[in-house]
Amino acid sequence: MTDKSTQDIDALIAMMAKLPGLGPRSARRAVLQMIRKRALLLTPLADLMQSVAATARECLNCGNIGTSDICAICSSDKRGNGILCVVEDVADLWAMERAGGFKGRYHVLGGTLSALDSIGPEQLRIPKLIDRINAEDITEVILALNATVDGQTTAHYIADQLESRVRLTSLAQGVPIGGELDYLDEGTITAALNARKQI
Amino acid sequence: MTDKSTQDIDALIAMMAKLPGLGPRSARRAVLQMIRKRALLLTPLADLMQSVAATARECLNCGNIGTSDICAICSSDKRGNGILCVVEDVADLWAMERAGGFKGRYHVLGGTLSALDSIGPEQLRIPKLIDRINAEDITEVILALNATVDGQTTAHYIADQLESRVRLTSLAQGVPIGGELDYLDEGTITAALNARKQI
Repeated sequence: MTDKSTQDIDALIAMMAKLPGLGPRSARRAVLQMIRKRALLLTPLADLMQSVAATARECLNCGNIGTSDICAICSSDKRGNGILCVVEDVADLWAMERAGGFKGRYHVLGGTLSALDSIGPEQLRIPKLIDRINAEDITEVILALNATVDGQTTAHYIADQLESRVRLTSLAQGVPIGGELDYLDEGTITAALNARKQI
Repeated sequence: MTDKSTQDIDALIAMMAKLPGLGPRSARRAVLQMIRKRALLLTPLADLMQSVAATARECLNCGNIGTSDICAICSSDKRGNGILCVVEDVADLWAMERAGGFKGRYHVLGGTLSALDSIGPEQLRIPKLIDRINAEDITEVILALNATVDGQTTAHYIADQLESRVRLTSLAQGVPIGGELDYLDEGTITAALNARKQI
């Protein structure tokens, strides 16, 4: 398949293989599927990618991805009851939105602090977070960071910076809905036990 | 994320999730990655897809995918020593070409016979195969079909149709290179034992 006549197909496979979750083999399968379903899959995908490449941008306020300088959540007057939810990544914001229970606004850090990768507060959207807390009418900050070492380090750093200015909270830890004890790690079971509630 | 401002992004995620090997979650991760690496990933992918959508076509002779009516393998004068390799799918042809040991030409069936899915010989490229054997100077047909029930049924059907016209062969079955006996299924071990060779 190093033939000149298939170089675009080869290049497409090589580039698809760089996407997270795809390797060379699944990229080949995906490209064959796309070529077979050209009108249903390949052409619409190309058009959507062109359109997203032209319009998608980061919200200047919170870092969410949308199509305008200020995203739909930041500009909606139905959102924002003084609660700001801090997440690592846009994917986490989307996960929160799918759950649908949160009616405040977000702040996307764009990663976590990491000494190993030399990512300090300036590389993240932490200065902007502090600006927002000074400028907007925020009473509570929910630190919805991942329960990883880097996530928790970042949460502690932000908590230090914001201390006494706002109410700081974090997501509850415990048994997932539908979760079976036998399949849970010891840390989660201990956390759920320590945070037990009266029935 | 049902917001109007992100409908192209949502549509792109939904369409990416239809690709084999991707689900909703990996499609979201892939789309976020593409948006982050717009110049390196999203725009080139869109351009390549446009180009492939415009140029890719099935070879009228063998069913391979290329950019002309007769593919590079069928039109090459370095290929075709009278041996035709019959495969189920273009992916199988590509796998044979990566192995690099075969210097003949191919014939892609486009699937296997399947009573359950009402796929008969007419739905596959079997009539075209018989035409080619009558028209081209072919002495051997290698039936390189998958070792599945449908694959083997199809191989038997083709063997019946071609009997006595050409030499019919199939790929050898046995222990894969680098394979460990402990991890192989009983069928493969039995086949390898029955086809044992003197050292």
